[in-house]
Amino acid sequence: MSPSPLEFTVVSEDESSAARLGRLQLPHGVVDTPAFLPVGTQGAVKAVTPEQVAGTGAQMILANTYHLALRPGSDVVREAGGLHEFTGWKGPILTDSGGYQVFSLGDLNKVDDDGVTFRSHLDGDEVRLTPRRCMEIQNDLGADIIMAFDECPPYPASREQVEAAVGRTSRWAELCREAHSREADQALFGIVQGGCFDDLREESARQLLELDFPGYAIGGVSVGEPPEDMRRVVEVTVPLLPPDRPRYLMGVGMPEDLVDMSLQGIDLFDCVVATRHARNAGLFTSKGVVKIRNSAWERDYNPLDDDCSCYTCREFSRSYLRHLYQRSEILGPILGTIHNLTWFQRLMSQLREAIAAGCGLEFRKSCREKGFFSDRPSAGD
Amino acid sequence: MSPSPLEFTVVSEDESSAARLGRLQLPHGVVDTPAFLPVGTQGAVKAVTPEQVAGTGAQMILANTYHLALRPGSDVVREAGGLHEFTGWKGPILTDSGGYQVFSLGDLNKVDDDGVTFRSHLDGDEVRLTPRRCMEIQNDLGADIIMAFDECPPYPASREQVEAAVGRTSRWAELCREAHSREADQALFGIVQGGCFDDLREESARQLLELDFPGYAIGGVSVGEPPEDMRRVVEVTVPLLPPDRPRYLMGVGMPEDLVDMSLQGIDLFDCVVATRHARNAGLFTSKGVVKIRNSAWERDYNPLDDDCSCYTCREFSRSYLRHLYQRSEILGPILGTIHNLTWFQRLMSQLREAIAAGCGLEFRKSCREKGFFSDRPSAGD
Repeated sequence: MSPSPLEFTVVSEDESSAARLGRLQLPHGVVDTPAFLPVGTQGAVKAVTPEQVAGTGAQMILANTYHLALRPGSDVVREAGGLHEFTGWKGPILTDSGGYQVFSLGDLNKVDDDGVTFRSHLDGDEVRLTPRRCMEIQNDLGADIIMAFDECPPYPASREQVEAAVGRTSRWAELCREAHSREADQALFGIVQGGCFDDLREESARQLLELDFPGYAIGGVSVGEPPEDMRRVVEVTVPLLPPDRPRYLMGVGMPEDLVDMSLQGIDLFDCVVATRHARNAGLFTSKGVVKIRNSAWERDYNPLDDDCSCYTCREFSRSYLRHLYQRSEILGPILGTIHNLTWFQRLMSQLREAIAAGCGLEFRKSCREKGFFSDRPSAGD
Repeated sequence: MSPSPLEFTVVSEDESSAARLGRLQLPHGVVDTPAFLPVGTQGAVKAVTPEQVAGTGAQMILANTYHLALRPGSDVVREAGGLHEFTGWKGPILTDSGGYQVFSLGDLNKVDDDGVTFRSHLDGDEVRLTPRRCMEIQNDLGADIIMAFDECPPYPASREQVEAAVGRTSRWAELCREAHSREADQALFGIVQGGCFDDLREESARQLLELDFPGYAIGGVSVGEPPEDMRRVVEVTVPLLPPDRPRYLMGVGMPEDLVDMSLQGIDLFDCVVATRHARNAGLFTSKGVVKIRNSAWERDYNPLDDDCSCYTCREFSRSYLRHLYQRSEILGPILGTIHNLTWFQRLMSQLREAIAAGCGLEFRKSCREKGFFSDRPSAGD
């Protein structure tokens, strides 16, 4: 048997919560968990260089199978030598299954037991995605962690819809395990579906556990459900997952979610909020989100966040940042992204320290008191 | 008398041409000449951080008085401590007079002997610019080199128009010298006008020389005239300027112009072409301009330019760059700008070496043979 491409060690467990401090060893490096993965949808974290991403403290990034399969095509990436070689990001990479994008972005034609047929959101071309094809693509891309192809139902969905999706997701997971051709250097995770139905989440988890994946994701969240539903899904699902395997909550979250869900035992997160907000002039600070276009900052020559030592906060003032955003200078989103990503990574690093010290709950309390979570602007603001 | 903020030394003269190797000492550092200044129109070189600009080898940048006066306003910059403090660019800065932009971008209402009234291209507000106001603004901005307010006639313009512009430019230059309030730390240059009329160029130069500026610019070029006219203007004007003062050719140029005009004795250049082409997917290489969106590069895993050691060429392939531009990823223009600016700086550095060795003409010949100048895509391509 080939050596496992993934080694997960629970370094310590929080005494005040279900959180754990972990160490995830992957072919391209180590990831300290709980970890937040910046999103590089098309093989690039928007508005920053790989060098700048690494400078924020990020150890691992996510790239989207759906987008890369359409453009430039997974064969172009394979011929380059895989995503690491193609994108210049040296550390670990995770690719998602494409399931979420097929169901949310594509013009869906047909879901059957063998796969999904849809029209590309780029040019309307008909594309067929099956578990086998999904594995081929992700094997081409060559990420350290890859995801089994899943059916991700919309929100809201009927119990019947979700039940069918759970069944297909389990069968497809098995087919993916069979089709996965690079077991020695890519770790394949199963994705738990089940919508907001507790018993279906349980059924999905039980079926996937039989396939003995080296890690499990919770999917079908962050699809428009109320925050309390996402939280209940995590509460119900985490205890069903093996404690010695990494747990990945897909597409979450806001700073408050990162802390809360880590305390529930989640190890990996990805979310576009840090980078998307940066492009939309929403900058995270230890006193909440600053809308940097606001005229209040016109003559504010202080750094964006006194507690931050990122390049943006060391070198530039709120006044200059506001000017850049107001004038649509690309440098605005560049500096905003450097800051937001650094801010998220520092939050995770402080959280890990708190977990190591056994005081995760206290850390959450102090974040709340300081106002870390005081604003939750909508993603499109 | 206060010490001069500018010290210009001609280190050596080319034996094969009128080129000279110079050393320009300014309050914020040294500039080796001939030098190419990247353009930071609104106080930011588009798509790159000041750290990245410095990494390309650039020693000095240009910022636009007109744009900064409108937004954020020179008072906002002054209160920040000046452009260096505001923008985070530590090296020397040059601000232009605003004259060119007033006449090309503004909705011109009235030119009279005292100044210009125009409507802002941003919001239609009426703005009045006079020599005194132009100096106030540039004193607020605090660049190392500033420009006297000039009248820059359009191309084509009648002899009468150009004659009037030369007269006004000379009178305004005198008023600027009187109004300039920071002689100890900002060097004020006069701008020679005169359109494509040799005798008017001569008249303009003669009148400005009487005012004994520490440096002279050739303005009113790069306004749409045929290339041979620009070249003749330089040929006619340079010999009229004092050899011990730096000569600045405004808004020029393409790589070929940089080499040719340096051989005519020009010391300073600025041009948006390096950065604008980068945003429009035109990348300079030692074999000519590469249109990186071209499908020819889809599976070309070589660096953009084998001879270049910039971050872009060290870390990324043509295939990846093409993908970024095709997908409108901001990282495309970022990496393209890093490369183009590095390429321009390396050209200037090689040119300076050639001048030092007394073989400027030979250098031009070898550039031509290698195909350095083999493509001149239009600015908007």
